[in-house]
Amino acid sequence: MGAYSTKFTVTILGSNSALPANGRHPTAQLLNVNNHYYLIDCGEGTQMQLRRYNLKMQRIKAIFISHMHGDHYFGLVGLLNSLHLLGRKAPLSIYAPPQLKAIIDLQLDASGGRLQYPIHFHSIAPFESGSIAVHLDKQVKVECFNLKHRITCYGFRFTETEKEYSYLPEKGGPAGIMVEEIPVLKQGADVVRTDGTSFDHKMYTLPPPPQRSYAYCTDTLPLDSTVEFAKGADLLYHESTFLDKEQQRSKETYHSTAKEAADVAKRAGVKRLMLGHYSARYTQLYEHLSEAKSIFPDVILSEEGLEVEIN
Amino acid sequence: MGAYSTKFTVTILGSNSALPANGRHPTAQLLNVNNHYYLIDCGEGTQMQLRRYNLKMQRIKAIFISHMHGDHYFGLVGLLNSLHLLGRKAPLSIYAPPQLKAIIDLQLDASGGRLQYPIHFHSIAPFESGSIAVHLDKQVKVECFNLKHRITCYGFRFTETEKEYSYLPEKGGPAGIMVEEIPVLKQGADVVRTDGTSFDHKMYTLPPPPQRSYAYCTDTLPLDSTVEFAKGADLLYHESTFLDKEQQRSKETYHSTAKEAADVAKRAGVKRLMLGHYSARYTQLYEHLSEAKSIFPDVILSEEGLEVEIN
Repeated sequence: MGAYSTKFTVTILGSNSALPANGRHPTAQLLNVNNHYYLIDCGEGTQMQLRRYNLKMQRIKAIFISHMHGDHYFGLVGLLNSLHLLGRKAPLSIYAPPQLKAIIDLQLDASGGRLQYPIHFHSIAPFESGSIAVHLDKQVKVECFNLKHRITCYGFRFTETEKEYSYLPEKGGPAGIMVEEIPVLKQGADVVRTDGTSFDHKMYTLPPPPQRSYAYCTDTLPLDSTVEFAKGADLLYHESTFLDKEQQRSKETYHSTAKEAADVAKRAGVKRLMLGHYSARYTQLYEHLSEAKSIFPDVILSEEGLEVEIN
Repeated sequence: MGAYSTKFTVTILGSNSALPANGRHPTAQLLNVNNHYYLIDCGEGTQMQLRRYNLKMQRIKAIFISHMHGDHYFGLVGLLNSLHLLGRKAPLSIYAPPQLKAIIDLQLDASGGRLQYPIHFHSIAPFESGSIAVHLDKQVKVECFNLKHRITCYGFRFTETEKEYSYLPEKGGPAGIMVEEIPVLKQGADVVRTDGTSFDHKMYTLPPPPQRSYAYCTDTLPLDSTVEFAKGADLLYHESTFLDKEQQRSKETYHSTAKEAADVAKRAGVKRLMLGHYSARYTQLYEHLSEAKSIFPDVILSEEGLEVEIN
């Protein structure tokens, strides 16, 4: 086991833009943080894709929806319904633009039923600038920031929740630490008693590995602000609907080219870039890859079923 | 070419009940009447299934939605959106319970766009009894009748539109028919002139083949009224969510067993029965088939991709 003993991966369930084609599905990704699942966008067919790749849907704790174009959420109500039919009782959090709530409610109402588990709907109301923390649990912290698309659209940055220091008595620090003092050391703080005795935490502990992070940016024009919000991420997913030769069309439709995605990655100093949200016009994707690689070295293509380790 | 020179088939896009499983999809069927397409229900993933089986989605003229449980319509808005993205201009008719309109509108509104083609939404408001004619064009006549499920649910009967008689001069009727009299003969009527001369249409024409019909019934308890509405159909699709051993569960959830579907088929005197809307609990379906065949001889199982000729 390396520095990272916990899992932090993302699995691609859909890599295409609006029109499903060429065997590619509308957008959905599953983030696995230590076997806790977080779903990012939920295009039509997401529940089938989860089954296809043997990803247990009941493990999903929270769902994040970037914006209200259908290729990013048309699979949601079907998934909610299936979770219910499969006996879910655990609450589910949904983070999404405000309009989504009425859309879910109307469809649940029309079916004459109700879900047997609570949904905690967290409306992300439009905000001017900066980023807002939307979710925090023992596994992951999620921040949300603005992208620029035809309608309000959010990017998300997922960062591992800060871990405690590991307490290692075998490190051989001076004897005399009391059991109730260990939590102090695990916070990375020194023990200082009222009588002035002190114990250096570094003699007893190992710091946790750095917190890994994943920045998810679709659908959007390339932005300076994205460079800021994705700064230093271990993995950046940046949409690349088009190739450079379609730059004009890309701009008109508020999307990005592979080259522009790579430029954002380079300026943000991320470790790795993943492309996606491909236009249906492309049957092959090698040009996306080579175009991006001409700007930034470590690029991968998102494709259905691919599980990417983030580190 | 036999008596029927026009196509009248149904292709199964989804054969399962609420929970997609075992490679089976939620309900959708494509009726092909002389290469005019009619979509019956539209569960999640229908547009992908249309692509998979190379069925040109722009040929769809009308969509019929049986009821407001999601496994029968969650694929609709995605399909409408894709038709738009693919450049549709031709109008599309949708026949459905009234609640569906607001659900479509809300989702289109939220996306900030509008479709480039007109949707003619025909609300099927609840009605007491009998059947109502909902659609008629040159290909097909569609009647709607009540089923009995947890919420309002409609069955549909699709009948070929009445064809003209074929005018066959080589049949050798007496000479002297004028060109403008041919349309009279093609209606199956004799020509009778003001001077009393008459020409027997049977000497010049062949009657059209009988009108074929397809009755579609899901989700529902087995009903006496269905026996009436499906009377003499060339093909009856009757849901068979469960097997006989689950009869109690079937009743509680307002569904039918394979045996009950066969009993309806037998009493309605249909030519052939197709089963479907299988519960996710069944990985194999041979028991559905044998159970139904113990009651009614000509039974087939609906399964994804199957195209059934109706005659």
